Amino acid sequence: MKNFTDFRKQQLPLIEKEMENFINDYTANDRLKEAMLYSIHAGGKRFRPLLVLAVLDSFNREIQTADYQVAAALEMIHTYSLIHDDLPAMDDDDLRRGKPTNHKVFGEAHAILAGDGLLTAAFQLVALSQIQSDQKVLLIQLLSKASGTQGMVAGQAGDLQGENSSLSLAELADVHEKKTGALIEFALLAGGILAQQPQEVVDLLGVFASHLGLAFQIKDDLLDATSSEEELGKQVGRDEALNKSTYPGLLGLEGAKEALAEQLNLGNETLEAVKEISSDFHLALLQEFLNQLRLS
Amino acid sequence: MKNFTDFRKQQLPLIEKEMENFINDYTANDRLKEAMLYSIHAGGKRFRPLLVLAVLDSFNREIQTADYQVAAALEMIHTYSLIHDDLPAMDDDDLRRGKPTNHKVFGEAHAILAGDGLLTAAFQLVALSQIQSDQKVLLIQLLSKASGTQGMVAGQAGDLQGENSSLSLAELADVHEKKTGALIEFALLAGGILAQQPQEVVDLLGVFASHLGLAFQIKDDLLDATSSEEELGKQVGRDEALNKSTYPGLLGLEGAKEALAEQLNLGNETLEAVKEISSDFHLALLQEFLNQLRLS
Repeated sequence: MKNFTDFRKQQLPLIEKEMENFINDYTANDRLKEAMLYSIHAGGKRFRPLLVLAVLDSFNREIQTADYQVAAALEMIHTYSLIHDDLPAMDDDDLRRGKPTNHKVFGEAHAILAGDGLLTAAFQLVALSQIQSDQKVLLIQLLSKASGTQGMVAGQAGDLQGENSSLSLAELADVHEKKTGALIEFALLAGGILAQQPQEVVDLLGVFASHLGLAFQIKDDLLDATSSEEELGKQVGRDEALNKSTYPGLLGLEGAKEALAEQLNLGNETLEAVKEISSDFHLALLQEFLNQLRLS
Repeated sequence: MKNFTDFRKQQLPLIEKEMENFINDYTANDRLKEAMLYSIHAGGKRFRPLLVLAVLDSFNREIQTADYQVAAALEMIHTYSLIHDDLPAMDDDDLRRGKPTNHKVFGEAHAILAGDGLLTAAFQLVALSQIQSDQKVLLIQLLSKASGTQGMVAGQAGDLQGENSSLSLAELADVHEKKTGALIEFALLAGGILAQQPQEVVDLLGVFASHLGLAFQIKDDLLDATSSEEELGKQVGRDEALNKSTYPGLLGLEGAKEALAEQLNLGNETLEAVKEISSDFHLALLQEFLNQLRLS
């Protein structure tokens, strides 16, 4: 049972190495490679790949090359989505994680291609990974569902349509479930599958993901509404400027804070339910992911 | 042994139905779906998916659902690449196949997402296809290699870098091998793999693809340099306007025509070589693909 900070410190460089090595070895154009690596190196919390690995660690499963490959592929897809999301035609952001966005450095054309490249490379990495074929196919099915037109890309489209129109709470939840929830769900499902857990446990990990994902989005909305650009390392107040529906907008600041706390509690309860089925499951590490989302 | 025109007439609706059904069933946002289907329905020669099916037919293999799934996935990737390629930040084309380009109708943001969606859906379709797992994984490996950072996306990046700079003939060939050749190669390899052909034959189909792909690009350059917008259904003279290196630019019009004829001859010779190994192989249909590229 590891401490979250130690776990993160130990695993981050290994996730980053896996992404970097794959991009270096499998990119046949230098400028494209540079643009892809720029955004990969821009850092970030690595929330999603760490989740994959945390599930494995929670079941006392030693983390292997194949696990890093899946975690890296997931983070590459997340990174591509940020590059495309930041484009002038989309959210038009100049700053991401305190650094100029990809298109600000490499131009729009290369930013589009860097995103396309990372997306394709993610599937290539899983397809080439050290996993047996049936499981590989299952993971590619789940990853394409989570990141594509039933998941993230559909959520991005819904998000665009939500600008300058007011969504109901249910519509907003649906957009976020697709836009951010689906990849977080993949992280938990993939962890459970790689850990060879029974379907019942994998399903519960999916339920945990839904609470974690919703909490993640409410926290993100709250930070956008209440932080300074310096604190956040990216432009703030963007949601309001774009007339986007948000949790604080629909529920008020206090209501959003309560909704966040509720999701964190439900997440904890789901982890307890996993523990009841799998006695060798250690809750502490995944609980820390919930704790990261508590308001300081 | 079928006539090319009949074969095309018979297969086109089935390829299109497969793409349309998959997009309809697997897209969770209506506007996104509409944007994806717009470009799918914009027509085109369906050169790549027809090639997959033509290989199967040339070996007397009945064409099955799984084959249409792979052919459809390939055409979805080709379609995504056209949508992104037409964007203002890339080639900035207003017209494609005689119709307004995707971003002209749906706006840039939705065009970017429609492309991302088609790309992801292509991998999802192969992952869900009626093929056994080992072959599925092999096809996803080849498709991601052909369409990604070792293939098409790298080629697009090289193409951008070739604007306003003069490439050598070898550099130009390398850009095109990646940009258009790689997907054409995938079509032939996938056809051979789905037809359960031995590696030796699959390799020869790859050699055929390289001649066909190069001929395809030289023909495309020649058309851009010599046709009217009305004849071509898209803007012409774009290569010259963007200062792109082209075969007619490097070899002259006559030199480019000779190079085209040479590639068509080499393609034919490769088909003869396949016939020498596989006596049940019928050349006629694949020869017709070469004939389509002859100058009228």
